Order: sequence, then structure tokens, then C-alpha cells
Amino acid sequence: MGGKAMQIRRVAIDTHPENTAFLLREGNGYSPEQFQALRKIEIGNGSVSILATLAIVDDNCLLEPGQIGLGEQAFRRLGLPEGSEVTFRQAPVPPSLELVRRKIDGDTLDDAAIAAIIRDIAAYRYSPMEIGAFLVACAGFMTTQETLALTRAMADAGRQMQWPAELVVDKHCIGGIPGNRTSMIVVPIIAAHGLTMPKTSSRAITSPSGTADTMEVLAAVDLPEDRLVEVVRQEHAVLAWGGRVNLSPADDVLISVERPLRIDTFEQMVASILSKKLAAGSTHLVVDIPVGPSAKVRSRREAIRLRKLFEYVGTKLGLVLDVVFTDGSQPIGRGIGPVLEARDVMAVLRGDPDAPEDLRDRSLLLAGHVLEFDPALEGGQGYARACELLESGAALAAMERLIDAQGRRATTLQPGEHRHEVRSHQFGTITAIDCHLIARIARLAGAPMDKGAGIDLLRKVGDTVRPEDVLYRIHAHSDTGLHYARDLAEGDSGYTITP
Amino acid sequence: MGGKAMQIRRVAIDTHPENTAFLLREGNGYSPEQFQALRKIEIGNGSVSILATLAIVDDNCLLEPGQIGLGEQAFRRLGLPEGSEVTFRQAPVPPSLELVRRKIDGDTLDDAAIAAIIRDIAAYRYSPMEIGAFLVACAGFMTTQETLALTRAMADAGRQMQWPAELVVDKHCIGGIPGNRTSMIVVPIIAAHGLTMPKTSSRAITSPSGTADTMEVLAAVDLPEDRLVEVVRQEHAVLAWGGRVNLSPADDVLISVERPLRIDTFEQMVASILSKKLAAGSTHLVVDIPVGPSAKVRSRREAIRLRKLFEYVGTKLGLVLDVVFTDGSQPIGRGIGPVLEARDVMAVLRGDPDAPEDLRDRSLLLAGHVLEFDPALEGGQGYARACELLESGAALAAMERLIDAQGRRATTLQPGEHRHEVRSHQFGTITAIDCHLIARIARLAGAPMDKGAGIDLLRKVGDTVRPEDVLYRIHAHSDTGLHYARDLAEGDSGYTITP
Repeated sequence: MGGKAMQIRRVAIDTHPENTAFLLREGNGYSPEQFQALRKIEIGNGSVSILATLAIVDDNCLLEPGQIGLGEQAFRRLGLPEGSEVTFRQAPVPPSLELVRRKIDGDTLDDAAIAAIIRDIAAYRYSPMEIGAFLVACAGFMTTQETLALTRAMADAGRQMQWPAELVVDKHCIGGIPGNRTSMIVVPIIAAHGLTMPKTSSRAITSPSGTADTMEVLAAVDLPEDRLVEVVRQEHAVLAWGGRVNLSPADDVLISVERPLRIDTFEQMVASILSKKLAAGSTHLVVDIPVGPSAKVRSRREAIRLRKLFEYVGTKLGLVLDVVFTDGSQPIGRGIGPVLEARDVMAVLRGDPDAPEDLRDRSLLLAGHVLEFDPALEGGQGYARACELLESGAALAAMERLIDAQGRRATTLQPGEHRHEVRSHQFGTITAIDCHLIARIARLAGAPMDKGAGIDLLRKVGDTVRPEDVLYRIHAHSDTGLHYARDLAEGDSGYTITP
Repeated sequence: MGGKAMQIRRVAIDTHPENTAFLLREGNGYSPEQFQALRKIEIGNGSVSILATLAIVDDNCLLEPGQIGLGEQAFRRLGLPEGSEVTFRQAPVPPSLELVRRKIDGDTLDDAAIAAIIRDIAAYRYSPMEIGAFLVACAGFMTTQETLALTRAMADAGRQMQWPAELVVDKHCIGGIPGNRTSMIVVPIIAAHGLTMPKTSSRAITSPSGTADTMEVLAAVDLPEDRLVEVVRQEHAVLAWGGRVNLSPADDVLISVERPLRIDTFEQMVASILSKKLAAGSTHLVVDIPVGPSAKVRSRREAIRLRKLFEYVGTKLGLVLDVVFTDGSQPIGRGIGPVLEARDVMAVLRGDPDAPEDLRDRSLLLAGHVLEFDPALEGGQGYARACELLESGAALAAMERLIDAQGRRATTLQPGEHRHEVRSHQFGTITAIDCHLIARIARLAGAPMDKGAGIDLLRKVGDTVRPEDVLYRIHAHSDTGLHYARDLAEGDSGYTITP
């Protein structure tokens, strides 16, 4: 690699997600000008190497001359023991950056070019700035062919899980609707029927709860891959956190930049979802696209464009797709936040008379679509079969087995004990509930980190209200959380009430 | 700012250009989930604050509970003494990022929107990733009106230098041509004439030398502002490094992202150059646009588009502009690299018979254009006056005074003692020299960090050569540098020789 040999020293500083290396300013023979060029370095021993940002240290409590310090993240990624000899040099510019520049200049990229970019991104050779440049250039315009190439490249950058079943089904909602925890009802229904459905989900990043956060109220979701495979072998299904199995390393890197920039184009969405499903070994997929004024997709025209893109890319990659449009005009269920959502899910599975009907209906609709993939089932019988499995208690039993197999949580978590009720100020009918605003209020209350924090919706669209009627109740585990959430909600409840 | 009070501790780690803060993982009462949200924080005491990236420390040699560590860059920028009480919180998202998202979505931004973005960039509120997103979105398309707004916003983000003269002239080359050190000849000519020309220049970032690097071979260029003003008062001129006076903080931040991404659109170029000239207090500006197959501008058509953009934006902002197209088909002068270029400059000023003619001619042409700004000079007399000032020795005398005023370098620097001659392999005439490749070879040899490293061109376009004739000589201070440069040059000399 060039440069003189240095000894690795582990430095107990965590700069996740960036790799950082540390070097004493004095005693290693580098001039200030040389340090300027050494902002980003490649460190290795000829067989393994990583890229890292270099920090210059003036205090020898951390390092001695002749040592190169590695922060915890960098030390882990390089994987060599302390004291190993390595060399380092100014990080070479990944050649695929030239292709990103062509994309910025307005060129269309071919499959090989996109594959080269994605390989370098998955290998952590791009800085967040460079990833952002690629994503923004793609947001400018991206052909259907480029989207297909991107999806394939992202799937190829990871490895593919294999299952001992020909039919491996999945169901994915594009998100944006608070409380929409249908997966936790669909999965046990499908498992009870006997199809294989290894569902991995994300944790919330910008929403008040992800399926993984809500499932975690009931059972362990952070399963190592062998445990996950074992649960699926035994129960046909799993409801686990996908972050642990690292299915699509390129997607994980891209998402870390898409989120803060809030880049959420249809092309990126399709590539991200389908590449993960391919990596998870799915063969058949139901995609749920909620359409509504405060949903991700706001009109039927947009929904059709997105459906066509899903179908084109999915089919080219060998997936059987069923894209379903659903009502995205308001939150689903009553609870928003992990504990409150888990309560709703179990109420539906148990068949409680006061279980939220909209969550039950939506789950049955989607489970019906998934069941239609079963060639043994007569066409059109999916929905009826889903109702049967739910009403008979078979789905509940499957869920209880799944919870036990993943590891049941020892204690029952409760909704946050700090509460505030948001009330109507007028007579009228509720005509809209703003999904964005409700999500923000629930997050301010502490969801998803505080499992019991969130919102309990007591009134939904179509209900008539009078002054002082409670619209919803905010739950928090801390006074501060309740205070922030209440301030936002009292400024704007998110409810439209028409006299 | 919220959060509990912490004491500042200075941590002797330099993470320039990023601000970094350090916090112990244990003992401050934060959960892993909270640390996840605290990747980027705002630290302050109510009257001053900075943004920083948070690194988590597991070793209490650096910090104790109740302390927040600040890296050297962050400590300097916050400007509070060690032990001061501060609080911190998750960094708020700058509201102007919403405008960047609109630009990514294809909107045209108005003046107020661009001003808001630039204010936040100049205040270090954007991450490199966010700056990259803005720049790439602008590279996608940018209207003339947006370019004007960007230039004005960048100039307004800094402060404007004031000079006790009505006419403050400057001359700027858009770059890309190795050896093109005309400023170091134009400035003494203009100073000898008596016009005010406070020239600040950049150091090389991607080229083998910037004017500041070459001038530094002869004199100090890193002048504090009061010294710089003093030199101009005394000598009418200066040849200083612009980085010290921080004229356009927004431009400095943008450039730190443009360079690695190699974003070099005409719109960014015009905004960057003209905002800096406005901040420097210039009233009249000659812009030199070299046109050639390996220059930044490759055709006359492109050159005209760029000239029109300069003229539109410059005139709207009250600058008097004279845009000159020059021959950019090959390097200028013989030496490439600080010491070799300084040698050429002084040879021209002294009137040495073997001084490079092209450097002399180009300097006189540009000096002539600058002198035409002088209302006291009869129209068309600029060039003749420039020749007169050079030939009489008045320009040399002005340069010697300038060197003394800035601080003459005590020792004379020599070209690198490791040498390699690149030779012709054939009979023929030199028809082209690749500016890019020559620049890369010179940089590999060690320029601009090693002042004596670089290339001495012994043959130029139009010369006839025979096998074994020396085309150029590579100079380096180290064997390694010579080795890298020689390898590249022996693979491709950069010379096109036509039989």
C-alpha cells in the first residue's frame, strides 16, 4: 500500500457510521501539507483494507508515534488484532465516481456503470457527500431501465437467503400511514395457512413506530441469522428486525443518506424495496400503496405510475407481484406508538369486540391477496380463507407460537403514564386526519424510543363530535415529552372538523 | 437550548474541516437510542453556539462525566474558555433544507430562497452531504436569474473590503492552464502605473501550483488583514493568499465540496469568482478565459456562453467587466510548479533574453486590458503602456518593493535535485501538449507541497524534434515523487508529435 508500517491501536471512540483513524501530529514525520492531503485514507495490510477519515491527535494519552489509532467502528470493520502492522495512504478516488459525474452531467447510465457505482457504495468507498450527489443526480431523472439496473445491482451487492420452499411470500407497505401494523396480523394468518413468510421489517426512522419496534413489545426481534432461520423452519414465518441480517448493504448505505435528505422518489423506493425482497429470498410479493392527501402517494394517477414501475422491475427480476391500492386518508387503528399498536394488533387477533375494525379489515384484505398466491387455493377464495383463519383463532395461536419461538418478552409494557387529552372545540363531523402531523406529535411524545409513548385516537374520520369531546389521548413516559407533544397538538390537532 | 449543563473540555484532536464533540458513553445518563438521535448536535450557552458531529468515547483518559469534549476545530469556532458551562441538543434541521428539496424536485428558486440557503451554508449549518445535494441539484439546471441571486447571496454572506480609491482593478483567470502565472507580472505592471490592485489568490487544490504558492517562493503570502491593507496602502498592490482574509465564507464552504465532486459548472464558476471580487472591493475586472482542447473551456461557442453569463451577472452587481479569450492550447511558460514558475516570472520581469515569450506576451496583453480601465489613459494605449512599464524596469522595481513589503523569503529555493528527462521517440513537430496530463505529472512529482518539484518544459507546440531530444525535465525532492511522475510520463508524455 506504500508508506511506512504502523501498528494498529484501538481507540475507544465511536464515530458510527463513519470510520475514523487517529494519528499523532508530531513524531511520525508528516508535514502540515501532507496531513491536508491525508483527510481520507486507506489502511490495510495487503489482504484487507478499509477507508477512514483521519483525525490528527495532539495528546499522547491516546497514541504513540508509530501507531495508527482506529475508532471502534473502523477497528471492527478492518478486523485485525491490536498491534498488527498496517500501512496507509491517501485514499484512492473510486473510479466509479467518474460515472456519477456523467450522471450529474445528464447522461443515462448503462447496467455496468450502475453496478460499478453500487459495488463501490456497498464497499463503503463513497463518502456521504458522494452518495448524496449520486442520489440527487438520480432524483433529477432516472429511466425505467436505470431503475431496473439499480435494483439488480443492489440485490447483487448482498447475498440471497434461501428457503426450503418453492413459494416464499411477502407483503410490503410503502409506509406513511401511522398505526398501519397489518403485517403483525397478516403474518400469523399466512403462517396458520402454512405458506412460508419470513418477514423482516425495519425500525422506525422518521415514523412513530416500525413493525420491528411494535413486535418488540411482545417478543425479541433482534435475531441472529441462524435463530431467524430456525424460527422460520419451525413456524413457517418470522417477524424480525431486518437490520440484523444485513440483506442489502448497498440499500443500508443509500438509506443513511436518503433519510436526512428526504429523497423519496418512486425510483429509489422501488429499487430499495424490491432489492431487499430479492435478497430475502421472496418469490411472491403483495405491495400495499396507501393513497391519500397526507400519504406518500397523493393521487390515483401517481399510484398507477408507481404500480407500473413496481410491476416492470419486479417482473424483470422474476418476482410475482400483486400491487394493491388502499385508503390512505387517515391513520389505521387507534394506537400510534409501539405499545399502543401492539395492543390493537392483539385485540384484532383475539377477536375482541372493540378491536379496531379498520385495522382488521385492512389486514384481512391484504392477507387475502397473499393467500391468492397459493396455487392450492381456488381463485377468489383468499379473503374468505383469511377470515376463517382469523375467526377460528388459528391466527392468534400462530402468533403466540411465533412470540414464543422468537422469545417472549418477560414483562408487559404499559402505555406512558403521563397523559394529555386533546379535545374538540366545536360541533361537527371529522372529515380528515393529517397523517404527518399525528406522526410528529407521537414522535415528540417519545415514540418509538419510549415504547409506551404515542397517541390513542378515540375519534376517526366520519365521527361527529361536540365541544370538549376527546379526539385523542397523548401518552408519554416523561413530562418533557408530553409537554412538547401537547404544545404541537394544541396549536394544530391535525383533525379537520366540518360543521 | 435544553438539556443539562455540561462543562467544556478541550480535546486535542483535530478533525478539520468538521467540528467534532466528544461525550462519554457511560455516566451521562444517555441510552444507546438517544445517542443514535444525537449524531449531530448544537452546543452553546445561549449567546454563541456551533454545530458538531458527536463521537462517543469509552475511555476516560479524554473526558469525565459532566464534560463535553470539543475537538480543536470546534473549540476554536465556539470560542468559549475551557470549563465554560454549555448545553447541547440534537441539531435542528436548517429550515432552508426544504428549499434545497424543492430545487431537487425541479423548482426554480427565487432570490430570498437562495439567500436563505447561502446564509445557512456560510454559518456551517449544512453537512457536506447537504451541500453536495444543493450543488448537484444546481448542476442539473440553473437559470441566469438564479446565478445572479447566488452570486449576490454569496457576496452578502461575507463582508466587503473597502479601499481608499475609486478604481479598484483586478484580473482573474478561470484556470486550467499549467504555468499560467501572469498575475505575478500583471500586478507589478499595474502597481508601477499607480492603479490600486489588491490581488488575493488561492493556493493550488487540483493544480500543480496556485499564484499564492508561487509567490510564496519569493515572499510571505499568508498576511493578516491589517498587514495586507498596509501593503496595499504603501504599494497600491499586494499578491497575497486569499484564504487568510476569509472574504467569502459561503464560497469557501461550497468549494470544499465542489472540489472532491469536481462540480465545475459555468454557473458555479461565475458565482464563485464574482462574489469573491465583490467582497474584495473590486470595481473593474478583466476575466481571462483560456480556450483549448484540454482547457476548462473547449470551444469558442462555450466561451461565448460563459462570457455572456459573466457580463450579465457582473453588470447587475455593479462591476465593470472585460472578458478576454486567450489561447489555452498548451501550458504557458516553461516551469510548472512553484520554484520553476517563480524563476520564469522573475526572468520576464528582469527582461532576460531567454525569458519565456508566451508568458511575457500573455501578461502584457492582460495588463493592457487592465490599464484600459484607467480613464486618464487614452483609449487603446493600455498595451503600449504595459510594454513601457515592463521594459523600463519599473515593473521589476515594483515587484521588488512588493516582495519586501510582504516579507522577502530569506533563502532562495532551488528546483528539486531528483531529475528525470522525458525524451521524444520520433521525428516530427509538436502539435499539442495535454494540460491535464502535464498537471498530473507535476503533482505526482510533489508540486505544490514540495516547492521545487514540477516540470521544466524544454519544447513547446510548433517545435520540431528528433528521437532522444528532451521534451521536458521532471524535478522532485524525493525518489518516490520522481518515481511516480516518471512512470506516468513514460506511459504517456502528454505530447502529440506529428511526423
